[in-house]
Amino acid sequence: MPHIAVSDDLPGIRALLAFRPETAEPLGALADALLHAPNSLSRGDRELIAAYVSALNDCQFCRRSHAAIAASYLQDEAVVEAVLADPEHAAISPAMKALLALAARVQQGGRMVTPDDIARARNEGATDVEIHDTVLIAAAFCMFNRYVDGLGARTPADPAAYTARASLTALHGYK
Amino acid sequence: MPHIAVSDDLPGIRALLAFRPETAEPLGALADALLHAPNSLSRGDRELIAAYVSALNDCQFCRRSHAAIAASYLQDEAVVEAVLADPEHAAISPAMKALLALAARVQQGGRMVTPDDIARARNEGATDVEIHDTVLIAAAFCMFNRYVDGLGARTPADPAAYTARASLTALHGYK
Repeated sequence: MPHIAVSDDLPGIRALLAFRPETAEPLGALADALLHAPNSLSRGDRELIAAYVSALNDCQFCRRSHAAIAASYLQDEAVVEAVLADPEHAAISPAMKALLALAARVQQGGRMVTPDDIARARNEGATDVEIHDTVLIAAAFCMFNRYVDGLGARTPADPAAYTARASLTALHGYK
Repeated sequence: MPHIAVSDDLPGIRALLAFRPETAEPLGALADALLHAPNSLSRGDRELIAAYVSALNDCQFCRRSHAAIAASYLQDEAVVEAVLADPEHAAISPAMKALLALAARVQQGGRMVTPDDIARARNEGATDVEIHDTVLIAAAFCMFNRYVDGLGARTPADPAAYTARASLTALHGYK
């Protein structure tokens, strides 16, 4: 049950955003810039990073939401679940494995990132912008996950709730 | 040394924001909505929460920046340092102690927040909006701290660098 008096009609972060429009606007713009705006990293790959960090933070609402959006883009639910379970052994590119490993360091803490983590990503072809965006996506989900669970936002049990919403987000973004 | 090719002329997060204007704009708008916009929590108290979470995350650039801004508002550097060392024994209100304790839970993880943490804040008079904003400020600094340290942003050693900037931020905000 949510810790504050938010709408019963909206799940997860959507109830929090409706409660406080003043912060909802920049949060939506940030998610859109990171996950939906044009980028050399595909939308599917960026959603994978978001879902993976949410899984590491054990935030079920964000994990399920962004796993469903990633699956919607990639048209492959199995690869998404494989990434969330163990990215190093999933059927994804070496570059994505390096970026997910970097995201996992950021999830532990900013000071956990080592020059070797950066060098691995760069050796796999990641650009400075891609490294920047991976770090910021991972950092942003350390915020979104804490926001959702720190206020006890509702987490629907029905998987259909996430897939229905995922198609809309994949189409329209986060603004 | 920063992990990506950012300006040598700007310290900390400012070099990262200049590197990627697309994400700088929503990040600035979020910081402004949380820390500078009108609120029943004073700007000084909100900066204290930001500085305290940054100290818990051991992010020296953010800790020093927001401690200096808090001291600029509160006109009391000693109380800021006392809060960062041990909020329960600092000369602040019981309500602020409850909000800082809530922020510390969020820093550990969203799922660490308990109904007792919320009840303590509410018993000290905190409103739902104040509880919401405290959780989101703490969550946002778990992002900002990871962004800054995850990309190895430069942390000036000279305390004067922080106090000079703090007066500007206190005056003009984050946009």
